[in-house]
Amino acid sequence: MAAQNPSTKVLSGAGLRGQVAGKTSLSTVGKSGSGLTYRGYDVSELADKCIFEEVAYLLLYGNLPTQSELDAYQAKLKSLRGLPQALKDVLERIPADAHPMDVLRTGCSMLGNLETETDFAQQNDQTDRMLAAFPSIINYWYRFTHDNVRIETDTDDATIGGHFLHLLKGEKPNELHEKVMNVSLILYAEHEFNASTFTARVCASTLSDIHSCITGAIGSLRGPLHGGANEAAMDMIEGFSSPDEAETEMMGMLARKDKIMGFGHAIYSESDPRNVVIKGWAEKLAADVGDEVLYPVSVRCEEVMWREKKLFCNADFFHASAYHFMGIPTKLFTPIFVCSRLTGWAAHVFEQRANNRIIRPSAEYTGEELRPVPDMSAR
Amino acid sequence: MAAQNPSTKVLSGAGLRGQVAGKTSLSTVGKSGSGLTYRGYDVSELADKCIFEEVAYLLLYGNLPTQSELDAYQAKLKSLRGLPQALKDVLERIPADAHPMDVLRTGCSMLGNLETETDFAQQNDQTDRMLAAFPSIINYWYRFTHDNVRIETDTDDATIGGHFLHLLKGEKPNELHEKVMNVSLILYAEHEFNASTFTARVCASTLSDIHSCITGAIGSLRGPLHGGANEAAMDMIEGFSSPDEAETEMMGMLARKDKIMGFGHAIYSESDPRNVVIKGWAEKLAADVGDEVLYPVSVRCEEVMWREKKLFCNADFFHASAYHFMGIPTKLFTPIFVCSRLTGWAAHVFEQRANNRIIRPSAEYTGEELRPVPDMSAR
Repeated sequence: MAAQNPSTKVLSGAGLRGQVAGKTSLSTVGKSGSGLTYRGYDVSELADKCIFEEVAYLLLYGNLPTQSELDAYQAKLKSLRGLPQALKDVLERIPADAHPMDVLRTGCSMLGNLETETDFAQQNDQTDRMLAAFPSIINYWYRFTHDNVRIETDTDDATIGGHFLHLLKGEKPNELHEKVMNVSLILYAEHEFNASTFTARVCASTLSDIHSCITGAIGSLRGPLHGGANEAAMDMIEGFSSPDEAETEMMGMLARKDKIMGFGHAIYSESDPRNVVIKGWAEKLAADVGDEVLYPVSVRCEEVMWREKKLFCNADFFHASAYHFMGIPTKLFTPIFVCSRLTGWAAHVFEQRANNRIIRPSAEYTGEELRPVPDMSAR
Repeated sequence: MAAQNPSTKVLSGAGLRGQVAGKTSLSTVGKSGSGLTYRGYDVSELADKCIFEEVAYLLLYGNLPTQSELDAYQAKLKSLRGLPQALKDVLERIPADAHPMDVLRTGCSMLGNLETETDFAQQNDQTDRMLAAFPSIINYWYRFTHDNVRIETDTDDATIGGHFLHLLKGEKPNELHEKVMNVSLILYAEHEFNASTFTARVCASTLSDIHSCITGAIGSLRGPLHGGANEAAMDMIEGFSSPDEAETEMMGMLARKDKIMGFGHAIYSESDPRNVVIKGWAEKLAADVGDEVLYPVSVRCEEVMWREKKLFCNADFFHASAYHFMGIPTKLFTPIFVCSRLTGWAAHVFEQRANNRIIRPSAEYTGEELRPVPDMSAR
């Protein structure tokens, strides 16, 4: 009989919770600064002082860019926004009622057929291409299937966030909106060994190509326990017409033990450092559009959840109102998360490749003991 | 500061090797019988007595089918071989020189847009659909881009293996070839927490849809450390014109410490129980085609690797010559693996969903300590 290697260890936590599955130099969660750092920099400070392209460069190239490095990087990304005709043809064949994450997953996978990574030396160029093209992919499909137009995806917007809003709405965004997009993309860029990032690393550990890794990660982020919490939060808060109604309804939900999205976190136990940042910008956007309902409703939800459950808003909760104030359809919230987290995923793929062993855990067997195969007549 | 949950554990093995990451009732590897069991049945006995559809049913529905259950299952699978026009349009836009695993990954992802799993109650039907459609997807693309024909993917072949060969060659396979395809698909169907299966489970743990899980798994199987070993073995052995030349060349490769694919295994330490089975069929196929080179070369390779390195052939090594004798192009070897392993992946997804906690490990941080963000001029 073929023998199994000895000494398998049974881990205590389901879902590998609290178990170290590898090393990273990319981020810390709940360890220093306000609670989330990228390569040692506090995410709150990055969101305050940088544009997203600086943070993408930091994650993907290892350091914050100088002005000339940033200029060159922005120029490079700008030049990579166009989509091949075959990819546009594919996007046009995806129905309007498809799940937008399925569209991005398919768009990324198709891009991998047309511009395959044939050598790991291409990994940075391939990632930059995806970084530039993902907003084009999702908005090309969205505008074609919802507005019946074939948009030109080459824009001259300075930032990815500006590019995204420009494609979506057909006009350059104002300064406030472009700033909030930068903040949002920075906040979502990287978060250690979350499920989608871990998916990318498991895939990378087989030495597969970068498009396979990112395609897999998109599929994992699609799950309602991972991405999509900001969409669920939006669905909830837009049903409340006043803070008092929100409080009454939430108390009912809590009494019925309904799942309420946008609160608490697998790793953070007291607060999510991203919340205070996006909440501040949601408040500014509310003032900008003259909102007197959605923002106060959101604040009341936060108060109720803390008072009743000691649960804090995570990054997703105030993202819902912030995106909504900028006129972004709810179904595109999680695709924006992809456009950001792509940087963290890819940086983890690079890291896995640089010091790799295939990720192949064992399982505890709970099934049938050895038994003979019965003849058909005896089943 | 947001606190991290206490007591993270550092695991000893890189790649989670030997670490139990969850439970399964689907298979044992290196524990009982010849070394691989599916739901308690020895894979050698299954390969001897069953067709692949019986094993697929076993993995996906929990028991070996009765004759009437099997008849109904084969009829169901037969009825699901056709492809939607939008999917064919996509496949026609993928170039002939694309990686066939990228084609399957994209085909699966596109199918998820057209026939989305909207409720987990659909998981068995969705899986059966993929099981029936994957041979159609890969062969539709292959024949369109390589032979310039648009094939009809609805065939009346009794088995998936027969269907695959029929589409590939444009005629019904003989009995020997259909039998070997059944054996091969059975041998590759399931293998506990290998990297692609673990990818599917991580994705499933976010409660994502089945197409996301399978798309991600395909991407992981694409990696040269996982799937593709039979292709690499084929590339090597077809370069040898005689057993003596094979021995000379292999001794040189060993002296140069070249990586030789198709030998050894992460879990099995003495032999791979699948090897003796497929080797027997490779010998029969060699006799059938009158081969006097490839099979003897393969046998000599096995002898040399055992004598020199105590490394045994794994499932992949004699698959290379077996597939080759049936006229299957080398680049389609790993896609056949997908058509088989899909059953194991999906069964693991069902299992993960039935007792789920999101898979979210921790990481050991090796990066920079907290530092301030420098102004642009100070970088």
